Amino acid sequence: MVHMPPKQQQTSEERYVAQLTEETHRLLEHQDFTEFHAFARDLHPYDLTQIYRELDPEDSGHFLIRLQTEQLADMIEMMSGQEQADIFQALGPDRSVDVMEQMDDADLTRFLQDLPPAKREELLSYMHLSSSSTLRKLLGYPPESAGRLMSDRFISISAEDTVQEATEHIRRSAAMSDTISYLYVVDQERRLAGVVSYHDLFFAEDHQLIGDLMKKRIVSASVTMDQEEAAQLIQRYEFLALPVVDEESRLCGIITVDDILDIVVSEADEDIAKMGGGSKDIDFDTKAIVAVRRRLPWLILLLFIGLISGSIVNFFENTLNQIVALAFFMPMIAGMTGNTGTQSLAVVVRGLNGRKLNAKTVWKLIRRELIVGIVIGISCGLLITVIAYFWQGNLVLGGIIGVSLLATLIIGTLTGTCIPLLLSRFKVDPAVASGPLITTLNDILSLFIYFGIASRFLGML
Amino acid sequence: MVHMPPKQQQTSEERYVAQLTEETHRLLEHQDFTEFHAFARDLHPYDLTQIYRELDPEDSGHFLIRLQTEQLADMIEMMSGQEQADIFQALGPDRSVDVMEQMDDADLTRFLQDLPPAKREELLSYMHLSSSSTLRKLLGYPPESAGRLMSDRFISISAEDTVQEATEHIRRSAAMSDTISYLYVVDQERRLAGVVSYHDLFFAEDHQLIGDLMKKRIVSASVTMDQEEAAQLIQRYEFLALPVVDEESRLCGIITVDDILDIVVSEADEDIAKMGGGSKDIDFDTKAIVAVRRRLPWLILLLFIGLISGSIVNFFENTLNQIVALAFFMPMIAGMTGNTGTQSLAVVVRGLNGRKLNAKTVWKLIRRELIVGIVIGISCGLLITVIAYFWQGNLVLGGIIGVSLLATLIIGTLTGTCIPLLLSRFKVDPAVASGPLITTLNDILSLFIYFGIASRFLGML
Repeated sequence: MVHMPPKQQQTSEERYVAQLTEETHRLLEHQDFTEFHAFARDLHPYDLTQIYRELDPEDSGHFLIRLQTEQLADMIEMMSGQEQADIFQALGPDRSVDVMEQMDDADLTRFLQDLPPAKREELLSYMHLSSSSTLRKLLGYPPESAGRLMSDRFISISAEDTVQEATEHIRRSAAMSDTISYLYVVDQERRLAGVVSYHDLFFAEDHQLIGDLMKKRIVSASVTMDQEEAAQLIQRYEFLALPVVDEESRLCGIITVDDILDIVVSEADEDIAKMGGGSKDIDFDTKAIVAVRRRLPWLILLLFIGLISGSIVNFFENTLNQIVALAFFMPMIAGMTGNTGTQSLAVVVRGLNGRKLNAKTVWKLIRRELIVGIVIGISCGLLITVIAYFWQGNLVLGGIIGVSLLATLIIGTLTGTCIPLLLSRFKVDPAVASGPLITTLNDILSLFIYFGIASRFLGML
Repeated sequence: MVHMPPKQQQTSEERYVAQLTEETHRLLEHQDFTEFHAFARDLHPYDLTQIYRELDPEDSGHFLIRLQTEQLADMIEMMSGQEQADIFQALGPDRSVDVMEQMDDADLTRFLQDLPPAKREELLSYMHLSSSSTLRKLLGYPPESAGRLMSDRFISISAEDTVQEATEHIRRSAAMSDTISYLYVVDQERRLAGVVSYHDLFFAEDHQLIGDLMKKRIVSASVTMDQEEAAQLIQRYEFLALPVVDEESRLCGIITVDDILDIVVSEADEDIAKMGGGSKDIDFDTKAIVAVRRRLPWLILLLFIGLISGSIVNFFENTLNQIVALAFFMPMIAGMTGNTGTQSLAVVVRGLNGRKLNAKTVWKLIRRELIVGIVIGISCGLLITVIAYFWQGNLVLGGIIGVSLLATLIIGTLTGTCIPLLLSRFKVDPAVASGPLITTLNDILSLFIYFGIASRFLGML
């Protein structure tokens, strides 16, 4: 019996996991493997991952050895790539291959695609030919395509079957489809012809034909469809699963809503990293040195771009020497231009998500942002003119600052709108259009405009 | 027959919707209502929303009149709040109430909660007492709680029933549960006792007891649980639905994965708006004047904060007058501090999503960001010292700028980390911790540090 020290502020979930972990430790220590199997079978695979993470290194090794292959496969499917790699390392090649044969194709593909090619080939070469050739085919689809996401855990039936015949067929293939709510109907050429739910079948008479029960209007994804588009389909139609077909409309696999949830979350992480100009691979658990390595190159690039702002100020050194007060408004003008740019960027980044833009939408957006920029520019420009006049007692200076702010706010709004649109148009990695880049570019533009206008009217000051 | 002008670059989906719209127009024009009903019944509710949006105003009125109440309810459930309000306006109170009685509680609650209280009361007063009292109860749960999201479309059965008894019970209540894959098992006091899937029932023998079939370890949400927490549960366990219970563990409703998808997307939108310092209510379709109204107040606030930076420069006017070159590095130092702050902010904003932080996690994060700040500060500080020395030919100036950058990068990283954490700790609306605010605050801090250090070493320059 392990006595765990009472932890402060344990949530009910933490208490539950602690109990399970203790029970696991007890069963493994007493070598009570029959009871251990029964205990593990009753748990959700997510609970198994929680226990695995909490166990001492010694126990967790035993845990992996004693779990049944199928339980292990279900647990590993729920884990991140790094954890999966660690476990397969610990299991050794033979058991790893056994576990992989039990895993869902979608999860296994996701694991294999991130491995170094040599390691991937090694694992594939150990597997049964039928499994490895399926996996090779899946890995051949473009990254982030529907084909990469497909699961093989679906059941297809024939439209000419009666409900009774279909039921028998389903019972035979039951083990492989325990999480799916739909049955897909295919014709002789395995082309997708319709869909019925377990629920429909449950309420049908034995002699009814599947062809009469099924819904014929089916929404499907093609293997090469972008994953974001597939996610949009599932979201719009509120589907639990989406069938995926090849060029000849043959059913190849299904995408399930839980995989889509993961994608939606990771796309959102990407967008937020984009706004922050960091890497989406940094989270609470990233080590400091890794975080530095991911952030620093970007910051050094921005440092050099930031020096361009400096050389603009340098270029206008004479103007600045004559009116030092111009420097007082530099941070505000540069900052405001960056702010309005970031606001526009946020709208565009989010709007680009999973949407194909046509020229009409783009022009409408640019026109709207132009109007927004002008209205915001006039409002803030007038306000700062009044403030600068009262602060510095100089109407011309106030006017110069107001006109500069008007101009830079319009430019900043358009930069924040057009740069991400252009990058997405030319399929450049949109991570380049990050918030800090927009801010830094807007710094340069705004200082140039500001000092340009100021030196033009220098004689009047 | 309507001849639609061929549109450029129509996607296959647009073509499909155009065909459906044309067919709808034809059927309504010929007053072929029997065929219209059959046609509409075959379509997915999402397709109906698409048709409705494409129809001419005249046709769309007929469309609403001719759709059957249940079809109308399914279609309205798929729409946004504004569209729903427009349709109920068009339907008039009597038909609206009929439609509402058919709608899922979760969708109806979401619609009602955004209405002005007087309008909401009016609609509720027209409804059957049983429906309106259920809705009032749901509306009584805290905003963004699991209780607000609950659907009433679930079936509960008893553990003491045999499979056959349960099946008969389910057939009787079938109409109300067509989208759910699980059946919830309750005891005499309606307390949640277990869960079985249609799939389990489908493969069971008639005489088996539900109590023997059901899974007893059930994950559930409480009515007052935050919606993000419920979303995390569904995501982690890859559930299709999550039962919601009250304080006495009685089953009150279920939350389905499609509602969770919507929440995950809207939480991500909120985070991105936060990073951009705008309002999450601005999208591609927002009118310019509305976008201005939502962005301007925030920008004006930032303008005033930006002027504080100006007064810092003003305060150090003497220093700046003596060494104008200090102004060259102002934009870079302020910019870099903002950039590192925004990177940290992105990590924190994303990490706070649906996670309860304990002190250990927070300290670990702050320590990590401090290390990151120091390493980044030393790297960038050394680099800029060398650059400044070669550019301005002055080692002391180079040193001042390097040390300033080191200090401001550390401060900027910590600000970007701690401000959102503090706000979340004190439950202040985290929208306040937006990217532009962090950037603007970091402007002030960095200029203060920069000029502070510079005037300290003024004699050496």
